[in-house]
Amino acid sequence: MLRVQLLLKPAALPVWTPALEAALEEAGIEAALATDHAPETVDYVIYAPGGGPVDLSPYTSTKLVQGLWAGVESIIENRSLTQPYARMVGGGLTEGMVEWVTGHVLRHHLGMDRYITAKDPHWDQRVPPLAADRGVTILGLGVLGAACAAALVTLGFRVSGWSRREKALPGVNCHHGEAGLSAALVEAEILVLLLPATPVTTDLMNADTLAALPRGAVILNPGRGALINEDALLAALERGHIAHATLDTFKTEPLPAAHPFWTHPGVTITPHIASETRPDAAARVVAENIRRSEAGEPVLHLVDRTRGY
Amino acid sequence: MLRVQLLLKPAALPVWTPALEAALEEAGIEAALATDHAPETVDYVIYAPGGGPVDLSPYTSTKLVQGLWAGVESIIENRSLTQPYARMVGGGLTEGMVEWVTGHVLRHHLGMDRYITAKDPHWDQRVPPLAADRGVTILGLGVLGAACAAALVTLGFRVSGWSRREKALPGVNCHHGEAGLSAALVEAEILVLLLPATPVTTDLMNADTLAALPRGAVILNPGRGALINEDALLAALERGHIAHATLDTFKTEPLPAAHPFWTHPGVTITPHIASETRPDAAARVVAENIRRSEAGEPVLHLVDRTRGY
Repeated sequence: MLRVQLLLKPAALPVWTPALEAALEEAGIEAALATDHAPETVDYVIYAPGGGPVDLSPYTSTKLVQGLWAGVESIIENRSLTQPYARMVGGGLTEGMVEWVTGHVLRHHLGMDRYITAKDPHWDQRVPPLAADRGVTILGLGVLGAACAAALVTLGFRVSGWSRREKALPGVNCHHGEAGLSAALVEAEILVLLLPATPVTTDLMNADTLAALPRGAVILNPGRGALINEDALLAALERGHIAHATLDTFKTEPLPAAHPFWTHPGVTITPHIASETRPDAAARVVAENIRRSEAGEPVLHLVDRTRGY
Repeated sequence: MLRVQLLLKPAALPVWTPALEAALEEAGIEAALATDHAPETVDYVIYAPGGGPVDLSPYTSTKLVQGLWAGVESIIENRSLTQPYARMVGGGLTEGMVEWVTGHVLRHHLGMDRYITAKDPHWDQRVPPLAADRGVTILGLGVLGAACAAALVTLGFRVSGWSRREKALPGVNCHHGEAGLSAALVEAEILVLLLPATPVTTDLMNADTLAALPRGAVILNPGRGALINEDALLAALERGHIAHATLDTFKTEPLPAAHPFWTHPGVTITPHIASETRPDAAARVVAENIRRSEAGEPVLHLVDRTRGY
């Protein structure tokens, strides 16, 4: 009987406990799920605590800390983590992200807001260009970025991508490295940020990179709040160089009520919902990783702490 | 030298004339385009007049009337048409329709309007279901309906379809005939109308069929205004059975300024732009059809006037 410790915020337990129990049983794994096992006896930790980091140093015989988040910033900064850590990939994260990104790209492409917010009769037949004539650039071509790029290519958009190291994706005009960034930005009528937050990507979108976008560009940030210098974005919106920003992630979350983003007409805010883990799907990912670990197979989606993701 | 008569509204000529000239030249067809050839000398008519129908009876030696519209209602009613008539298929129509339908399905699926119209801070993390848990039904599985269904299937939606005669489309739960309609409607959290306007489909969405939809359903009508009984729709919106209607087509167009749709909070209006012919792409379709006709090959997209499409 494996001992599985649930380090989750209390509000999440009623949803996650039955989902995890069902997935483990389906995988044929006998496990005791609890929040109060003695740490030194715990085989696996399921990790997504609310509030600050949890001290993991007492978990001396834990084989794997399995996160329920795609992001790794908070765990990378947790110095008490010495066990292997796997982040959540799958579990509805990718599907949800593809839906959010495709939906908001099409929203801006089609100019929907004008019709959604119209108050008066407006029989003004402005036909948008076809997707084939619309340049969309995705910064970050990991699992999420590649899936979003594929969906946009299927819809016919002219898709460019950028990643740190060279990549090749079908139908995507791929750029890489520092030298490739400005080429990727120039092609971005709509820019999608899907990079991880690392010291290198912090404030990647700043006064200089924003100025490199075509005038009237739209920015979507479902990735990480750290990627954008918020003051520089507000300035670029003010002078009309950036037409709109649809933001799902922020430097501080929840976004403080006094933040100028809330009231700026050029900003749409979604409250960090672009890609939420869905318990049933994610629980199956957790069970599969525990099964692999017990069978001596490679565990999926281990985080390389030297690279930061 | 073929004589090609342009029966287009005057405002369209500066855009269409060069597009058609370029496409015909590219196809190696020598043609004289004009608006004032003597009708009895005309080989081909390009037809998309503004205002009322044009009398086609003087065009006694015309081999083909090539429309620039996907719809055929106005031409079917034109009794002076005795020549073969081809409607526009391609020319950006399908791509544009897929973009509009996919965009507005995702908009309603993701609940975007709440964020687009928000005035106050709203850190309220309601996560939408995945597309796999969202039922979308398309009424009409012709070229446009099938293309939209394919795009929605690719995004993971649970797609149902309905057509008059039996059809099979990959990944689509296909219903047909009068008996299949209620099964298709029951599955429609989001309903997309892409049927042609015929005597049989007029007011297809009426008090009875609207009541057959699940409570809170959303209706998208990029198809034909005739498909919806507007009074019945307003009543269903009033009592909350239909949560929202996004309409691109209407019984009377332009939609009269006094129409209650304009001010109804549950209605979004786009002014018949879901699927507009794009001149460059459409001109290539026209040139191909003229090439086929001259070469004795079958002309594409001829309208069967006995069926009404």
